[in-house]
Amino acid sequence: MVINAEKSEFNEDQAACGKLCIRRCEFGIEEDQEWLTVCPEEFLTGHYWALFDGHGGPAAAILAANTLHSCLRRQLEAVVEGMMAAQPPMHLSGRCVCSSDPQFVEEKGIRAEDLVIGALENAFQECDDVIGRELEASGQVGGCTALAAVFLQGKLYVANAGDSRAILVRRDEIRLLSSEFTPETERQRIQQLVAFTYPELLAGEFTRLEFPRRLKGDDLGQKVLFRDHHMTGWSYKQVEKSDLKYPLIHGQGRQARLLGTLAVSRGLGDHQLRVLDTNIQLKPFLLSIPQVTVLDVDQLALQDDDVVVMATDGLWDVLSNEQVALLVRSFLTGNQEDDPHRFSELAKMLVHNTQGKDSGATGEGQVSYDDVSVFVIPLHSQAQEGSGH
Amino acid sequence: MVINAEKSEFNEDQAACGKLCIRRCEFGIEEDQEWLTVCPEEFLTGHYWALFDGHGGPAAAILAANTLHSCLRRQLEAVVEGMMAAQPPMHLSGRCVCSSDPQFVEEKGIRAEDLVIGALENAFQECDDVIGRELEASGQVGGCTALAAVFLQGKLYVANAGDSRAILVRRDEIRLLSSEFTPETERQRIQQLVAFTYPELLAGEFTRLEFPRRLKGDDLGQKVLFRDHHMTGWSYKQVEKSDLKYPLIHGQGRQARLLGTLAVSRGLGDHQLRVLDTNIQLKPFLLSIPQVTVLDVDQLALQDDDVVVMATDGLWDVLSNEQVALLVRSFLTGNQEDDPHRFSELAKMLVHNTQGKDSGATGEGQVSYDDVSVFVIPLHSQAQEGSGH
Repeated sequence: MVINAEKSEFNEDQAACGKLCIRRCEFGIEEDQEWLTVCPEEFLTGHYWALFDGHGGPAAAILAANTLHSCLRRQLEAVVEGMMAAQPPMHLSGRCVCSSDPQFVEEKGIRAEDLVIGALENAFQECDDVIGRELEASGQVGGCTALAAVFLQGKLYVANAGDSRAILVRRDEIRLLSSEFTPETERQRIQQLVAFTYPELLAGEFTRLEFPRRLKGDDLGQKVLFRDHHMTGWSYKQVEKSDLKYPLIHGQGRQARLLGTLAVSRGLGDHQLRVLDTNIQLKPFLLSIPQVTVLDVDQLALQDDDVVVMATDGLWDVLSNEQVALLVRSFLTGNQEDDPHRFSELAKMLVHNTQGKDSGATGEGQVSYDDVSVFVIPLHSQAQEGSGH
Repeated sequence: MVINAEKSEFNEDQAACGKLCIRRCEFGIEEDQEWLTVCPEEFLTGHYWALFDGHGGPAAAILAANTLHSCLRRQLEAVVEGMMAAQPPMHLSGRCVCSSDPQFVEEKGIRAEDLVIGALENAFQECDDVIGRELEASGQVGGCTALAAVFLQGKLYVANAGDSRAILVRRDEIRLLSSEFTPETERQRIQQLVAFTYPELLAGEFTRLEFPRRLKGDDLGQKVLFRDHHMTGWSYKQVEKSDLKYPLIHGQGRQARLLGTLAVSRGLGDHQLRVLDTNIQLKPFLLSIPQVTVLDVDQLALQDDDVVVMATDGLWDVLSNEQVALLVRSFLTGNQEDDPHRFSELAKMLVHNTQGKDSGATGEGQVSYDDVSVFVIPLHSQAQEGSGH
């Protein structure tokens, strides 16, 4: 369920899902990249869901929704032989150049799932390159967050770059499957980049240091709370004139902005984005690499109503994990198990809950003016389908 | 208990402990830096323990043992007024420049303990600068790891830079109070530095990529397992000639070395250290900043025999956390509570256990040829002494 709210003319949220058909193929062969085509030489089947929350227009989110699965399939096909072995071989060909190669791989603790994680990391980066080229060629701009889930060989992989979120909701448990990447959560990484790699980049416009609020003339000469890139704690420093500049990261919580411009620190696109009225580029501070978590569904002692809820910040800004879990549990308890549409209905109900409707369950009725997208994934049916070959 | 083993002529392990007397003092005033002097204007008392494991000679470890507590005291004295408030004020003077300043501090979640964490982070950096200057002035070389614990206002702060370790041992619990910083645990940080900040630094001598083993001619053209700075997972790449260079991080576990030289990625000193027979400096890859963990002792429901064990890698290389906990519990059960020396005896026993003696309890009798240092800190007596003012 994806809705456009009042914030933008076009829906900046985009979603994609489908079957992933991963074929064993000779490396280097030209191949078409049709999505959801029947693959007679099909080798491994997975399922894919992804949400993209655009900013600066819907272009990047639309491109990502049309592209990321192809990048991922290509990356998985490049390593699929390694994924099928009990332990990935040192050489993809299986040829053993050195007799102790299996031992080296063993010592590094490399498992098949590490190849899927690597494929997701590389697919996000490849997709970011594609978006950069496509936007430039078509004279469009914009960026988007990306949250992708892949069910493969009995495991659910969740890859996140941005501020969307996925959680597992069970009868007696809520488990986070992603964490958010914002200017606040990535403060040290961003301050370090400014300190070591791009000291000239801010062109004297910004201060790297974090203060509890933006400083002003009255603070000059006073000792105020601050922290720099090397600190997780706080200290005091005497305020100098350069500390009065605009902060690298400004604002709190949902209002926090990187260089006064962006609310997220990871995502795809934004190759052309500059700070308003300056020549300062945002891209060097943004990571297109996701953090990947792995849920071993086969080890989970699954119950019928175990679901994964994936949603953009439009949902999470107005509903907490606990509120969502309450809504999920009460909906699934009250809706018959034999209704094939109950999970889609649940997704709709969650979205409606952000619009001040159906707010009985939470009793709060907070309203989201941001676009909202929700996937509800029943794990039981995934596990039953298994990793078809 | 600190012993010199067979590895080096001089003991490269050094230890320091004592009372920390933190005086309220006007910022900017010249002050003497005597250690353990009587302070009539004493304001806040803490306790301090630290271990330093030197390499390339004992010089840096000796300097650190003589210096770090002074740096820490100075850093704490610079913020002590803020530490004594229920919430640190935006301005150290307590003056309120903006009426909503307390709210800004509240929103950032800044607590008194964040000032202690910041003081530890700054003290390590300051101490590193002092060591750099002192070693250069005296024509000496070397570096050391640093693990420091501070008991202050009912909390134990553990700051670690290197591969020493502190654990809490209770009757029914083992809790890690530090994690190790080695070329392996900090692989991505080091690869990123090479990729973005110092691409020229390795002067064509090293490859940034990680492979399960060093590659050789026979691997050329094959697709082998690898990962780069953006990956926590693995993928395959076709081996080119440049991949045959010496790896940035080489070897496994205890044998892992950064640039073929160092087994740790954080610590103090090493300002002059270069890769053998080259002009490549190690210092840009080393962090002097510790990771700080906080144990809220007042919230712990302390038992008499709860102890913190701090030790250099000489202990942990031959004894696991579980083995140390077993030794601690069986020793304390068998030794009378009224023996004032039993915790020192326990530290001695742990060290002896690394020398193939007293190995009955573990039944393994592995021998450490590295220097070994152990502090055993009974938490009960700390909490009883409290945070005297």
